[in-house]
This record gives sequence, C-alpha cells and structure tokens, in this order.
Amino acid sequence: MKALVTGGAGFIGSHLCDALLAEGNEVVCVDNFFIGTRENIAHLHNKSNFKFYENDVCDLGILSGIFAKENIDFVFHLAANSDIQASALNPAVEYYNTYSTTFTLLECIRLHNVKKLFFASTSAVYGEKDGANVAEDTALLTPISYYGGAKLGSEALISAYAYMNDLSALVFRFPNVIGSRLTHGAVFDFIKKLKADNSHLQILGDGEQSKPYMHVSDLVNAILRFRDVPQGVTTYNIGVGSQTRVTRIAEIICEELGLQNVSFDYTGGRGGWKGDVPKFQYDLTKIHKAGWNPRFSSDEAVRLTVKEVLA
Amino acid sequence: MKALVTGGAGFIGSHLCDALLAEGNEVVCVDNFFIGTRENIAHLHNKSNFKFYENDVCDLGILSGIFAKENIDFVFHLAANSDIQASALNPAVEYYNTYSTTFTLLECIRLHNVKKLFFASTSAVYGEKDGANVAEDTALLTPISYYGGAKLGSEALISAYAYMNDLSALVFRFPNVIGSRLTHGAVFDFIKKLKADNSHLQILGDGEQSKPYMHVSDLVNAILRFRDVPQGVTTYNIGVGSQTRVTRIAEIICEELGLQNVSFDYTGGRGGWKGDVPKFQYDLTKIHKAGWNPRFSSDEAVRLTVKEVLA
Repeated sequence: MKALVTGGAGFIGSHLCDALLAEGNEVVCVDNFFIGTRENIAHLHNKSNFKFYENDVCDLGILSGIFAKENIDFVFHLAANSDIQASALNPAVEYYNTYSTTFTLLECIRLHNVKKLFFASTSAVYGEKDGANVAEDTALLTPISYYGGAKLGSEALISAYAYMNDLSALVFRFPNVIGSRLTHGAVFDFIKKLKADNSHLQILGDGEQSKPYMHVSDLVNAILRFRDVPQGVTTYNIGVGSQTRVTRIAEIICEELGLQNVSFDYTGGRGGWKGDVPKFQYDLTKIHKAGWNPRFSSDEAVRLTVKEVLA
Repeated sequence: MKALVTGGAGFIGSHLCDALLAEGNEVVCVDNFFIGTRENIAHLHNKSNFKFYENDVCDLGILSGIFAKENIDFVFHLAANSDIQASALNPAVEYYNTYSTTFTLLECIRLHNVKKLFFASTSAVYGEKDGANVAEDTALLTPISYYGGAKLGSEALISAYAYMNDLSALVFRFPNVIGSRLTHGAVFDFIKKLKADNSHLQILGDGEQSKPYMHVSDLVNAILRFRDVPQGVTTYNIGVGSQTRVTRIAEIICEELGLQNVSFDYTGGRGGWKGDVPKFQYDLTKIHKAGWNPRFSSDEAVRLTVKEVLA
C-alpha cells in the first residue's frame, strides 16, 4: 500500500509514518513544519520507502501535483492545528490549518479518485457535556473551541465527500494523546517548567481537571487495525477508560524527576482556559465491542511519556 | 436597530431587507452578486435607511472596514451558495461562498464585538434519514451534499464563536423556500421550461420526490419574531408540516399557466441528482411549541409563488 500522511512530521503523524513503514508500506509524507519538526522524521530519510514533501496541504495546486505523481492508495489526514490554546487567540489558525487542509485534501481525493481515508478528529467536537459519558451517536454536538468547531466542520465535509465520491472513511475522535515527540499540553509544559525551576510549579485552574490520556502507540496501533472500513463514514471514540487529574500529572513528573517538596501553585478556577473542557469522559463501548482495548491506562501513559521525554 | 444582512441582494436576503426596513430598522446590505441580483434591491436604493456594499463577504479586510464604519447591532448571515446542484460539480463553491463567508463574518463579529447573529442553515445538515421525522436534537448528522456539509461546518463554527465570545445566535434550518425572486429549484425550472415549450416537461427522477415548500414571507416573519434569543446558540427547524410532490408542482404550474395536456417526461430513478434528498420531513414540534405556525401550506406556497413569478 502507498499511504499519504498529511502532518506526517508532527507528533502523532510521525509515529504513524514509523508504524506504516514498519508494516512494509510506502509512505509519502507532506508537512509544512507549522507544528511538525524536521527532527521527528530525521530518522526516516534514509528509508527507501519514505518520501517527504515540505508543502502546505492548503495549496491545492501543489497537493494535486503530489497526488498526480504518486499513486496514493490511502490518505491519513493528520495535518491540523493541535494547540487549542493558541487558536483561542487567533481562530484563523483553525480555519487554515484544520478546516482548509481538510477541504483541499478532499478535493485531491475526489479529483484523483482515492477511495480510502483516515481522519484524526477529536473529543472537542462534543463540547462541554458536564461529565456525561458521550458516545459517537450523542446528539447536539456543540463545540466550545475553534479547534472543535473546525474539526466538526471537517467531519461534516467528509460525510458529504464520502457520499458523493464513494469513499471509505475512518474517523477517530481522539482524546488527549501523549508520548515521545509531543509538543504541548500539561505533560509537556510541566516537564519544561520543572526543568527550569524545580521548586515551584504553576498549575492552571484548580488541578482537578481530569481527562483521559492515551499513549500514541496505542492510538497508532488502533488506526492500522481499524483502517479497512466499508463505504461511507465509520466513526469511533478512541481512548482509555481511565483518567488522570492535572495534579496527578504533576506528581508523576516529580516522581520521575526525583523531585520532592515541589510547591504546586494553582491559578484557581474551573478550567485551564476558555474553550478548555475541564472534565471529560468518553463512552468507549463501540470500540470495545469491536474487540479493541489500549495497552496503557491513562496514568501509565502519563508515566511512560514522562520517561520517554526525559530519556 | 442597525442590521447587517449578508447576501442581502439574494432571494431570501432581499425579502429580509424589505421586512427589516418596514419595521423601521437601518439596514446595511453586503452582496457580491454571486447569486443575488441588482434587480432584487433596486427598489431599496432610494430609502434613507438602506445602505449597500458590493463586496465579497470572504474579504476580511473589506468586511472588517464595513464593521468599523457602521455600528452594527445585529448580523443576519444569508450569504451562501444556495444551488446544491451547481456545487455538486464544484465543491469549492461551498468552501468559499458558504463556509468561508461564515468564518470571515464570525471574525468580524468577534473583532468588532457584535453580540447578535442570525444564521440561515438548512435541512441538508441532516443527510438522508429515510423519511424519518428529524428533530433539532437528532443524532448523527450526516450531510450528503457539499452544501449540507459546509452549512453544518458553519453551525459548528458558530457554536464555538458563540461560546468564546458570548454571542446570542439564532439558527434556522430552512426547508425549500420559495416565493418571488427565487433563482432555482423545481418551481423556477419548470416555469422556465414550460414558457419555452408548453407541450412537454422533463422531470428529473420519478416525480415522487416530496418536500416541504415554505413561502419566503412566512420564513422572514419567523426570523424577525424569534430573533431575540439568550446567550448561546438556539436552533430551530423551520418549515411547513405539509409537502408537495414534484409532479404536483408541475400540475400547479400548468393550472396557473392555463396549460392542459402537457406531457410529463420522467428521467426515472429515485432522486433528482446525487446529493439530493428525495424524501424529507422535518419535526417542527419545537417551533410549534414556541407558538409559531406558517400562514401557507406547502401546496399554497407553491401556488402563490407561481402566481408571483408569473405576475
């Protein structure tokens, strides 16, 4: 199989490139290094099955040229903004990097007759549901972040393109994903802060925000396992049943760094920032019924990630 | 009140401008004549409360300049592609005219601190539901047209902007709307065809496609009546409980034109074209409970429209 991975130099995208190559596939990676980095794919350039294009997925002419040149069987669309805090200040980031990349890519898929698509969606499409256990068929999706809005819009576009062009599309709604090469979020920030000052740690909110954290290896394994879907759109919540509180993340990092008596300074309030969903729990029944379970719990994923980042 | 109407030279937009002016409001109309026409607003240029800008709503610089100059209290966003058949051949039409207009407008609303929005959405956000009576809280919205995909994406963006910027947004999901100044659809096409050749009429599909048709005057009255909503997004299905089959539309037009013995030639098949939803019925319980009912049934709206177009 020849796979195109958009955002393939990003955190999750580069792990997916690794896994696709390990399976023996040809991989064409497109990334503009908006968030992705050269380091994430440096180890892949000597592989004969790996090809890299430094391009913006929003450029229809260039992207269509790549489709014309390469004979793509399967598109894995991971190019997007992934920093909700950043786009809260500038929603245009989501318009360009999350929504418009999806539109441009779907146009190439239509014009070049590709039939298989994986799309990285997010729990943020649900909005704030007051701790309710949201399943894939939950009604009234009301995103409260520009990121969630642009991802839900992308899902809506995929629905239309899938129908109009007989696509088979797999959509995973991601939780917080962590692991080596991650670029932001509480685990990343806390490690960075504690390396700079190991006496104090400022924590946004009251530290009680609780979310499921999934290790990237579990996510990538699931993408590959579920990739063959029937015509139309198949959507799964993916994640771990357990959750980790923000304060617990700080504690695990301190344990792994061998730090004691670090003072946790809370800014107070409910959530970390406006557009953040302070408590969130997925309903994972659908993917469990399909026979899938993650290897790592949320706390285990946090600890493994801290070890990987510190390694 | 000073109202901005995007797409104000369009079919529905121009009727809304009329109604807002009749109420004594100031109206600022922005339209690029992509589908709207100079004729639709020709009668408004002599009104002191009416101001017109011939601009593309996608141009953020220009639109932001209009917001800076005018002190807008309320935005009525009707600029969009409205021809599903046209965009089925070129989805970029929806990306620019339906989704990107919404993004640009929401940016102006955010930057210029406007708090009230009306958005013209569509029954096409639901997708094909096999004749089920779809309510506003129906789960699994799966648009099958690029138009429906771009409108659902716009709703998702509005959800995020409303939360992040304390907007009060009213969203109506429109059925087929008809009346004077309409530009396409079965009523428009059939009148045009029968004026050219009154012996035969080609009808796409088997003529059994059945949809609710609403008269534009009923729609505009409802927009004005429901415009004051609490903070957040309030969504209503709007429409008529009755439906009109395509063949019945043809019959009504023949009756109004005084034509007998017109041969109806059916192309056959289920729907008119790919992306069309052949049978559709709204659940209107929510808006009925709010005390609203249309003046005209679907058949009455069709007949009134034919009279208006022929007048």
